[in-house]
Amino acid sequence: MPINQQQNMQSTAPLLLSRPYNFSPGPATLPVAVLERAREEMLNWHGSGMSVMEMSHRGKEFTDIYEQAVVDLRELLDVPAKFKILLLQGGGLGENAAVAMNISQGKAADFVVTGGWSERSAQEAVKYCDVHQAASARTQDGYFYHIPDPQTWRIRSQAQYLHICSNETVHGVEYQELPDLKALSGQNLPLVVDASSHILSRPVDWSKVGVLFAGAQKNIGIAGLTLVFVREDLLGKAMPICPLIWNYELQAKNNSMINTPPTYAIYIAGLVFQWLKAQGGVSVMQERAIQRAGLLYGAIDGSHGFYVNKVDPLNRSRMNVPFFLKDERLNEEFIAGAKQCQMINIKGHKSVGGMRASIYNAMSVEGAQALADYLKFFAQKYG
Amino acid sequence: MPINQQQNMQSTAPLLLSRPYNFSPGPATLPVAVLERAREEMLNWHGSGMSVMEMSHRGKEFTDIYEQAVVDLRELLDVPAKFKILLLQGGGLGENAAVAMNISQGKAADFVVTGGWSERSAQEAVKYCDVHQAASARTQDGYFYHIPDPQTWRIRSQAQYLHICSNETVHGVEYQELPDLKALSGQNLPLVVDASSHILSRPVDWSKVGVLFAGAQKNIGIAGLTLVFVREDLLGKAMPICPLIWNYELQAKNNSMINTPPTYAIYIAGLVFQWLKAQGGVSVMQERAIQRAGLLYGAIDGSHGFYVNKVDPLNRSRMNVPFFLKDERLNEEFIAGAKQCQMINIKGHKSVGGMRASIYNAMSVEGAQALADYLKFFAQKYG
Repeated sequence: MPINQQQNMQSTAPLLLSRPYNFSPGPATLPVAVLERAREEMLNWHGSGMSVMEMSHRGKEFTDIYEQAVVDLRELLDVPAKFKILLLQGGGLGENAAVAMNISQGKAADFVVTGGWSERSAQEAVKYCDVHQAASARTQDGYFYHIPDPQTWRIRSQAQYLHICSNETVHGVEYQELPDLKALSGQNLPLVVDASSHILSRPVDWSKVGVLFAGAQKNIGIAGLTLVFVREDLLGKAMPICPLIWNYELQAKNNSMINTPPTYAIYIAGLVFQWLKAQGGVSVMQERAIQRAGLLYGAIDGSHGFYVNKVDPLNRSRMNVPFFLKDERLNEEFIAGAKQCQMINIKGHKSVGGMRASIYNAMSVEGAQALADYLKFFAQKYG
Repeated sequence: MPINQQQNMQSTAPLLLSRPYNFSPGPATLPVAVLERAREEMLNWHGSGMSVMEMSHRGKEFTDIYEQAVVDLRELLDVPAKFKILLLQGGGLGENAAVAMNISQGKAADFVVTGGWSERSAQEAVKYCDVHQAASARTQDGYFYHIPDPQTWRIRSQAQYLHICSNETVHGVEYQELPDLKALSGQNLPLVVDASSHILSRPVDWSKVGVLFAGAQKNIGIAGLTLVFVREDLLGKAMPICPLIWNYELQAKNNSMINTPPTYAIYIAGLVFQWLKAQGGVSVMQERAIQRAGLLYGAIDGSHGFYVNKVDPLNRSRMNVPFFLKDERLNEEFIAGAKQCQMINIKGHKSVGGMRASIYNAMSVEGAQALADYLKFFAQKYG
């Protein structure tokens, strides 16, 4: 069969070891142990005679997989019982619409814009409610380098929620702690957090959260799965136009199975959760994230201007490290050299250019060290 | 690591061969060749050093996978150039909302209700436009046994589209040919077809279609991917409230990559498309579907009332064969005996009860023969 003949295709790409360091911003590198386990279970999960891909979402086998994943996730992030955990489709961009339809009641929502993602969130919400930027860090050249001091945010009394992106994947800006909206607004304003690109890399202070969501394809697993954590008192406010598959209240009542959930993506996420627990959980992930980020920012800052990252050091992301070569004529050589050293996907987002190293949970400290070493080597060679 | 220790877990389920016949309605059985290929490529796709799960959707590797899948799909179904092919998220239930937001313009839409799925589609569309049932086959006891004669459909002049479900997964009712709305309505009314559970099992007469969509988790691959075929002249009509990720026009302009698509599900779908081509394409799939369905309906009709399927023989589904044992006290024994004979997932949908055998493209004729043999054996033993 042709499907098998193609296994003999020879790649024409440069020689790569079987597992180079992959700094892709998402979909992103996964733990080898997870991929090996998925490979071993591909044709027959736990004696069921089925691949997980082939299981009815209502059968006992998949129900077990689903429930274990939710239990492990709740344990890993210490999620209080008053938060429902939904496993939906649509990614972060879909959730920008879904959260507005579920929480705004068609009234008003405020946004703090600290990068490309919170900016897109505000643009999407305009379809459903009156949108206001409580603060924006956008510079005249369209870049973002910091998080405006929460004390300066202009929060409206009519807002039904305030939305932040707690880690900006493109611009490398990350909240080190969540804002306390009760103190800032003087009212019980729900905080909506898009945590897509750093979920599970640090603890969450749930006392400050109304809704937290995350596309799975950055720091968890496969594209096509969205995690939504929603405080119970925020259920039941969906607008009549909210699609059934995104209705938080109804999905919460139906274990996210009003429609067929993305079963294989949930399975892979569950394997990642097991791997995270085996590694020591979120606190260990946080330690490693600090180490990895320290190695890269150290190499950038120690390059005497050969590499540039202008983000306020207090707001630098531990997950996404964007940087520019001062001499951008060296960009192609830099990328090609990295590939020769078994490091791939370090080109920056098309909207900003330059370079970006995404160093999620599944990236080893050794991988970050290798890239830091390469940064030094390249700067010495061309600096 | 615990993740590896669990490989030694012993199943407590009844003894099953490694690959029993799986009659799940979806997610459903997949070709073994596809699963084996996915297993082999799990850690390193074509020398890229990445699993497909780990690839940036904007990188060359995944772009190649994506484009090949679309080319193969277009070839398999002989899709005219004037139809755009979108690969989205949200499944059939999500698409019920999406299609209304993209095509109804907030005005009116007509529905022909022939089972649980078209009924749900009409319910969802109410959120976005004025909905009318042009025809309904619902019986007083809530069942569906036939497709109303198109000549009797009450199509409104203000309708922006007419929606049908061309194969009702739960009730086993299938159109043998698509209605000709131009002849029926005397106007250029777009036909919207939910073909989720029989796509690629028969050719499509595109001259009758405006929009055709299908969740992938029944007759293609992994849950979480939705295929949408939309005629170009229907683009650009989205309602302002349409979420960005479901805007047909914008997704068509962006190769369905406005957001991160469900990359791994697209990869598996692509492998299935290659497998379908290797098998001889849709015409061969149609022949096999006729054979499989013939075996099962033959066994049911030949049982002298031991098994019952009341669907009009002209409208019986080739993909989903629901049936009841006349003596329902035998249900549990029937299911247990099937499992002992290596046949699983034959219980009917919770809303109707009884049994259901879903016999999609990936089910071999031998599998249908085995089930037909079991039907005869069981009827002889207890009849």
